[in-house]
Amino acid sequence: MENFTYYSPTLYEFGRGSEEKIGMLTFLTGASKVMIVYGQKYVKNNGLLDRITTSLNTLGIEWVTLGGVQPNPTDTLVYEGIKLARAKKVDGVLAVGGGSVIDTAKAIAAGTGYDGDFWDFFSGKAQVKEALPVGVLLTIPGSGSEGSGNAVITRSEDNVKLSLRTDSILKPRFAVVNPEMTFTLSARQTAIGIVDMMSHIMERYFSTTPRVEVGDRLCEGLLLALITEAPKALAEPTDYQSRANIEWAGTLAHNGLIGCGRREDWVSHYMEHEISAMYPNVAHGAGLAAVIPAWMAFMAHHKPSKVAQLGRRVFGVEAKDDRTAAIEAVASLRAFFSAVLRLPLSFKGLGIDEPDIAALVSNLHRNKGEIIGGYYRLGAEDTRQIYELIDPA
Amino acid sequence: MENFTYYSPTLYEFGRGSEEKIGMLTFLTGASKVMIVYGQKYVKNNGLLDRITTSLNTLGIEWVTLGGVQPNPTDTLVYEGIKLARAKKVDGVLAVGGGSVIDTAKAIAAGTGYDGDFWDFFSGKAQVKEALPVGVLLTIPGSGSEGSGNAVITRSEDNVKLSLRTDSILKPRFAVVNPEMTFTLSARQTAIGIVDMMSHIMERYFSTTPRVEVGDRLCEGLLLALITEAPKALAEPTDYQSRANIEWAGTLAHNGLIGCGRREDWVSHYMEHEISAMYPNVAHGAGLAAVIPAWMAFMAHHKPSKVAQLGRRVFGVEAKDDRTAAIEAVASLRAFFSAVLRLPLSFKGLGIDEPDIAALVSNLHRNKGEIIGGYYRLGAEDTRQIYELIDPA
Repeated sequence: MENFTYYSPTLYEFGRGSEEKIGMLTFLTGASKVMIVYGQKYVKNNGLLDRITTSLNTLGIEWVTLGGVQPNPTDTLVYEGIKLARAKKVDGVLAVGGGSVIDTAKAIAAGTGYDGDFWDFFSGKAQVKEALPVGVLLTIPGSGSEGSGNAVITRSEDNVKLSLRTDSILKPRFAVVNPEMTFTLSARQTAIGIVDMMSHIMERYFSTTPRVEVGDRLCEGLLLALITEAPKALAEPTDYQSRANIEWAGTLAHNGLIGCGRREDWVSHYMEHEISAMYPNVAHGAGLAAVIPAWMAFMAHHKPSKVAQLGRRVFGVEAKDDRTAAIEAVASLRAFFSAVLRLPLSFKGLGIDEPDIAALVSNLHRNKGEIIGGYYRLGAEDTRQIYELIDPA
Repeated sequence: MENFTYYSPTLYEFGRGSEEKIGMLTFLTGASKVMIVYGQKYVKNNGLLDRITTSLNTLGIEWVTLGGVQPNPTDTLVYEGIKLARAKKVDGVLAVGGGSVIDTAKAIAAGTGYDGDFWDFFSGKAQVKEALPVGVLLTIPGSGSEGSGNAVITRSEDNVKLSLRTDSILKPRFAVVNPEMTFTLSARQTAIGIVDMMSHIMERYFSTTPRVEVGDRLCEGLLLALITEAPKALAEPTDYQSRANIEWAGTLAHNGLIGCGRREDWVSHYMEHEISAMYPNVAHGAGLAAVIPAWMAFMAHHKPSKVAQLGRRVFGVEAKDDRTAAIEAVASLRAFFSAVLRLPLSFKGLGIDEPDIAALVSNLHRNKGEIIGGYYRLGAEDTRQIYELIDPA
């Protein structure tokens, strides 16, 4: 274990009916007028917005709304939100949705009181010193943004996608989670959300830091819980308990807890980002389902130890030597993604008939550096091999 | 999973040299003059107090000291601390020690601004509405008080020991943890601290709430980490990594995380409290090492399911039927406490030649109610049987 600072001041209000507490929770942040940020129309159509505003009204909290957040959210709506926030003098932002909505809300919260262009925070030109308090009502789990201090925004003029990482200033003050709201997610949305959660766990799990037994066991525990509950939620979308376990695991996967005291990896994320940047129809979680097993298969040959441990502790692999155990772990994970989550593992399955691997590799190293990776240092020849290890069929 | 609220705003500063950040962390609480509460003289003698005050001085934070906290801390020192805090106009409390010191600091923090008797908070006559910010430098792990909002104080005039539970107002603002400070703990202190941690996990683990897969897996993960690291710390007391893993597991065992969404048990704690109340030489963790396996042995016959799950997932028990698996789990836990931690499991080993079981049972149910227990409801005849299941030799 390395030295660490861990600070997670988000209050989690979890369970059936928890959205009724939004008024009180907002009140406790000190906000008197909030901007409600949301994406799809169903927030308005299914009565959820009414329930939220009723809860706010009861506490005398004023509100304005900003709808229309899209997946891979852009700066356009952030600028609009900042303008509205200043005009209406809002002193808090309430995100109702998933990662795209929460990240938009965070960018607005950081930009409203800032004299310059909010993009400065994403380009690294400025640091966030103050921000409006952000509250979250989570309706689509997976991103983990409800418990993180980070946000990802795409600049629309040139499609540059940058992330902003803060220690705590942008961590939501509260996150309200009612697993019933995930009953209507499609099997595919559910599955790619679960892959996203598992990837947040594995990016931390694959670490070269020695002696991180507590962190390893927490990672393995969350993976085991997701593997146990995923088929139940897919078989029965209104099974509250599996939805609840999955959603809570998704929050703990990314609020910093399981990364305490360890170096992390994040190459699978980087490699996937290049895929969905070049092929915008690929959803992040879907891309990860293809990339992660390929990355692991490469590691089974080059650095199998932690992949083998994952296999033994999570998938019940019994092989004694690490390489064999790692290869079996990859097979188990592929089977889980493919047979249980019913996600494609190939470029073809992602809708990419002839992937331009040379361009993916070149973009990857241009954006992330010549040598990348926390668990194993990878150059362009290595990442090319990993892209090629993605299932061809 | 049941509905829950989880809020853990303590900042953890963990690792070698972390005590140097006490000045900055105290500054961030807004305090300008703190009372440093500690127990044993070694805080003063080994230069630790100097390092702390140097860190405070650098930030211009004034300080006063209050030493002499004893195990099972009493109200006497709390009254003294409150008087001192008022006279010196301190606006923060810094606890340097283990559970007794932290609990004393919390009671002082709650009592200083309160017009009445601080004991009102413990007797239930009043609720804590405001408190001075509490910071912690943890030197003796096990109690988990560094991440909890609770405190236990004994009233000296009649030896009544009461606990105060708050949602968050008494949760430490920060907890500084340097595992090197535990190198000098004796094997016995180390062992009973580990039992205390394991008990905090198991009191939550043994739950009747169905479908708590995430919480179960986190509990099992922490137990596995402790079982892996304990023998290493005992074999090599200056093994930083095992000390670090144990100490972090001890914090996560009791900061509320693993209890989210589940009913808890706590009967083993209640039963042990009666033992150490009647036989004050029995340390809490030592008493728990005797009580927990007895409680589990009773459950192996009356409600084996969760004990069997513990056996299978933590101790590798393979028995198919729950009762057999539970009995094997009890044997495994006894072997761990006895052969690895080298703790006695019997009344005799605790220094009690002829335990007055009738009096223990009668005190237990007088203090805690006729029927007790979250996992299985126990009357006086049941708890008598459990006390009798404690190893006779």
